[in-house]
Amino acid sequence: MNPNVPIRGPIPIRHCNICGSPVVHRVPDGDNAPRAVCSACDHIQYQNPKLIVGSVPVWEDRVLLCRRAIEPRHGKWTLPAGFMENEETAAEGAAREAMEEANARIEVEQLYTFFSVPHISQVYVMFRARLLDLDFSPGPESLEVKLVREDEVPWDELAFTSVRRTLQHFFADRRAGAFLPRFDDVRPPER
Amino acid sequence: MNPNVPIRGPIPIRHCNICGSPVVHRVPDGDNAPRAVCSACDHIQYQNPKLIVGSVPVWEDRVLLCRRAIEPRHGKWTLPAGFMENEETAAEGAAREAMEEANARIEVEQLYTFFSVPHISQVYVMFRARLLDLDFSPGPESLEVKLVREDEVPWDELAFTSVRRTLQHFFADRRAGAFLPRFDDVRPPER
Repeated sequence: MNPNVPIRGPIPIRHCNICGSPVVHRVPDGDNAPRAVCSACDHIQYQNPKLIVGSVPVWEDRVLLCRRAIEPRHGKWTLPAGFMENEETAAEGAAREAMEEANARIEVEQLYTFFSVPHISQVYVMFRARLLDLDFSPGPESLEVKLVREDEVPWDELAFTSVRRTLQHFFADRRAGAFLPRFDDVRPPER
Repeated sequence: MNPNVPIRGPIPIRHCNICGSPVVHRVPDGDNAPRAVCSACDHIQYQNPKLIVGSVPVWEDRVLLCRRAIEPRHGKWTLPAGFMENEETAAEGAAREAMEEANARIEVEQLYTFFSVPHISQVYVMFRARLLDLDFSPGPESLEVKLVREDEVPWDELAFTSVRRTLQHFFADRRAGAFLPRFDDVRPPER
């Protein structure tokens, strides 16, 4: 998915996406939260959190970072990641994003970090991964792609909290000799 | 969210949910997959995988199971779980579902299992949790709720593959003395 759209709250649904009639926002029978319910055909449009899947692609003592060519956070550095698509697994989505953003082939290894970002209704899932070769280059959503050692990470120029924390955990765990999956939340004003 | 709707593939979107005009299904500029694009206002309706969040609520050597009062899998046993809602964390969603399905208070501990189910565009995320008291009872979506030891689990009457595998991992890890987070996929015909 092209994430070239500013992050914002739930879209204010006004019409049924099946029959086109106006919706009303009410709590359906048997439910406990207001939903967009069609005034004509009763179809309910649910809105749920979106999953962002990505990876820490590793080559020897370095990890692959991408400098964003798109909003939000144009010009900032990130790990390859993006919205998970229907009909793919999370690992397939992480590999697809590495290819789209960095023309990079990776082998996904283990689930590594899991962050809920409730104020923007997103969940970030990052995997450890093996970069399979050095034939990478910027995809259309990246200005620049490079392998960095720990002391070369642009810590003050990272795009997202989940990326910063994932990299912090990664380098700390590598020094400790064991990678521990982590789950945590990201709260305002961070995102 | 009330999951009282048969599981099925993506909804065939026919109208813009902002202005009500007909949509066309085409690949937007800068994207690489067909989307439902409004023919009048250009609004794009993305469809993405849904997250199901749940828990293994533990009391001494027993875990809390719920017998489903709703489709799919009416009458089968499950761990408390359901669709994650906007503006909550995954752990908050897991606790909410334990309350809705079993009137059970839990303290979420660690991320435990993560399953992609690509053929139905779902991701299951299950946490280990501590059941805080024995004052539980069936919620409106459950016929029956009970604590079971390993040898009392109705293995042939479980509702979902992700629930069966989570329980298998849980009891094996408990015998081994260490809980290891797992990620895996569920493929057809399982779900």
